Amino acid sequence: MNNFTFHIPTQVHFGVGQIAALPEALKAHGATRVLLAYGGGSIKKYGVYDEVVRELNNAGLPFAELTGIQPNPRVESVREGITMIRDQNLDFILAVGGGSVIDCCKAIAAGAPYLDGDVMDLLTGKAMAQTTVPLGTVLTLAATGSELNNGAVITAGEDHKKLVLFHPGLFPRFSILDPAYTATLPPKQTAAGAADILCHLMEQYFNPAPGTQVQDRMNEGLMRVVLDNAETALAEPDNLEARANLLWASSMALAGLQLMLGKPMAGFPIHFLGHELSSLNDMTHGVSLALLTPAWMRLVMRENPENIAPLAAFARNVMDVTESDDMTAAQQGIKRLEDWYKRINMPANLREAGVPEDKLRYLADKVMEGRQPFGPLTPIDANRAEVIFREAF
Amino acid sequence: MNNFTFHIPTQVHFGVGQIAALPEALKAHGATRVLLAYGGGSIKKYGVYDEVVRELNNAGLPFAELTGIQPNPRVESVREGITMIRDQNLDFILAVGGGSVIDCCKAIAAGAPYLDGDVMDLLTGKAMAQTTVPLGTVLTLAATGSELNNGAVITAGEDHKKLVLFHPGLFPRFSILDPAYTATLPPKQTAAGAADILCHLMEQYFNPAPGTQVQDRMNEGLMRVVLDNAETALAEPDNLEARANLLWASSMALAGLQLMLGKPMAGFPIHFLGHELSSLNDMTHGVSLALLTPAWMRLVMRENPENIAPLAAFARNVMDVTESDDMTAAQQGIKRLEDWYKRINMPANLREAGVPEDKLRYLADKVMEGRQPFGPLTPIDANRAEVIFREAF
Repeated sequence: MNNFTFHIPTQVHFGVGQIAALPEALKAHGATRVLLAYGGGSIKKYGVYDEVVRELNNAGLPFAELTGIQPNPRVESVREGITMIRDQNLDFILAVGGGSVIDCCKAIAAGAPYLDGDVMDLLTGKAMAQTTVPLGTVLTLAATGSELNNGAVITAGEDHKKLVLFHPGLFPRFSILDPAYTATLPPKQTAAGAADILCHLMEQYFNPAPGTQVQDRMNEGLMRVVLDNAETALAEPDNLEARANLLWASSMALAGLQLMLGKPMAGFPIHFLGHELSSLNDMTHGVSLALLTPAWMRLVMRENPENIAPLAAFARNVMDVTESDDMTAAQQGIKRLEDWYKRINMPANLREAGVPEDKLRYLADKVMEGRQPFGPLTPIDANRAEVIFREAF
Repeated sequence: MNNFTFHIPTQVHFGVGQIAALPEALKAHGATRVLLAYGGGSIKKYGVYDEVVRELNNAGLPFAELTGIQPNPRVESVREGITMIRDQNLDFILAVGGGSVIDCCKAIAAGAPYLDGDVMDLLTGKAMAQTTVPLGTVLTLAATGSELNNGAVITAGEDHKKLVLFHPGLFPRFSILDPAYTATLPPKQTAAGAADILCHLMEQYFNPAPGTQVQDRMNEGLMRVVLDNAETALAEPDNLEARANLLWASSMALAGLQLMLGKPMAGFPIHFLGHELSSLNDMTHGVSLALLTPAWMRLVMRENPENIAPLAAFARNVMDVTESDDMTAAQQGIKRLEDWYKRINMPANLREAGVPEDKLRYLADKVMEGRQPFGPLTPIDANRAEVIFREAF
């Protein structure tokens, strides 16, 4: 286990009706004029917007609204929010939505006080934010873990490049997690969210390091929770226990638990390959991960059979495979994972998901732009990225 | 899953050599004059004391020393620390040791600013601390989780009553967790610490609530880690990976993870019964838990067989029992747990541990002082407490 620092300053209010905690939470963090940021109309359709506005009024806090933040949020939305904060002297950001809205708000939080240039300086690492505007979140989609961590992914440029921002000041001051808010999600988004949570857990699990048993055993437990509860939530959309377990597992996967702590940093290829698919045709992130993961696993088995142990452990400890031969166990685990993806109605392949075959090499090259071969278990270069895309096609 | 609030403000510096983070951590939290508190001589014997003093000197911070804090820390030590803080205008408490030292320091932290009476007012609930002195910890024993939570247990009076104190201001500001500091522990303390961690996990696990799968699956993973690594640490005391896993599991068990969140509060009888054994003859807390747990489990099976499910789940998901009948599975699980206690050299029974038989009823009555029948799965009253003590005798 490597050395690490563990720190999660975010205060989580978890459960049905926790929106009532909003006024006190805003006041505790010094909010006087709020940027209320959200995406499309779903929070209005399902009443979350009304509840948030009611609590802002209860708190007696004036607010301005930034709307229309898109999935795979773009730097243009970030700039819009920055301008609002500066022009209207807003001092707190309230993100209401899923990971896209929260990530956009984090970039706004870092960019608004940065007066030496455009926010792209921060997103490209040319400059580092000195201060940040405090932000809080009201989560409506269990997927990214952004509600409990200090990272953000922003899309920029005509080539839809994904840029990553981390800053200690970007932990939400508080996050309100109400499983009932996630119960109105369409089945497709529920399934894609579950696939995303599972992939976050897998990319930590498949980045093995000596002696990280605490991390790996907790991770296995969380993967089981996601596998079980995604199917329940799809079969019974109003099952709040299933929604609560998916929601809390997603926060634990990327944030509260910080399962990656004590392991080496290792860019996980499936996420980067998936980002390129999302950039190409706005494919939902979780869908791209579901399509690519089994292909990546098979690549590991073919190219680096000496690294089969974590795949075999996944098969046995998460997918209940009892086979004693590692290679056979891993194969059975992959098969069971694919069956699960089918049961939650993921598309069967990239073709079905609308990706043109003649773009696969282009996507593979894009993954490797500015990057050396990377990733745990089997290093990914452009050729291997293409192999994964083709196998998933 | 019940509603809950999750908040762990403590910053953890985990790993070998993290003592180097001490000067910056102290300064970040405004320390100018430090109370350095510890127990017996073991931190001097093994060099931890020298490292701490070196870093205090590196930070240029003057300090006063409170020494001789005993296991099952007494209110007299608390009062001594309070007097030192007041007389010498100290503004930060650095606890170096295990749970006893940290708990004592938490009571000092609450009591020093309390000028309206004696610290017993706070320990008995007669008054509530308004402010607290900030504290940090350097942990030398993986067991209680006190390094990452805001609770303390203090012993007071001629009858060695255990008093419990909780306060939001008692989270350590930082905790330094170096697995190498735990590698010098005598085998007996290593084993007792592991038994304590396991019992903390079990008392959360055996307090079942609908829909708490995230909590229960992570808990099962952590129990496995403790079972595996305790034996490794006993066989190879210098195995830092095993020490690291025990250490991080203990923090996750009671603190970072807050596995109890989302479950109803339920006083767990084994801990209270164990406290009385410790009060009687200073029996190490973990030893008392190991002796009482199987007897409590068998009581559940006899008195409330309708509550067998969590015991059967424990047997299957943690102890690798494959039996399909719940009652038989639970019995096998208890047997495997007892075998594990034997393998880590716990005493076989209370008699062997030096408890006089004629004290058993007295202990049972003490457990129930001021208490209604309590505890999950099977309610404990004085008669049932006596049954547990007798079965463990």
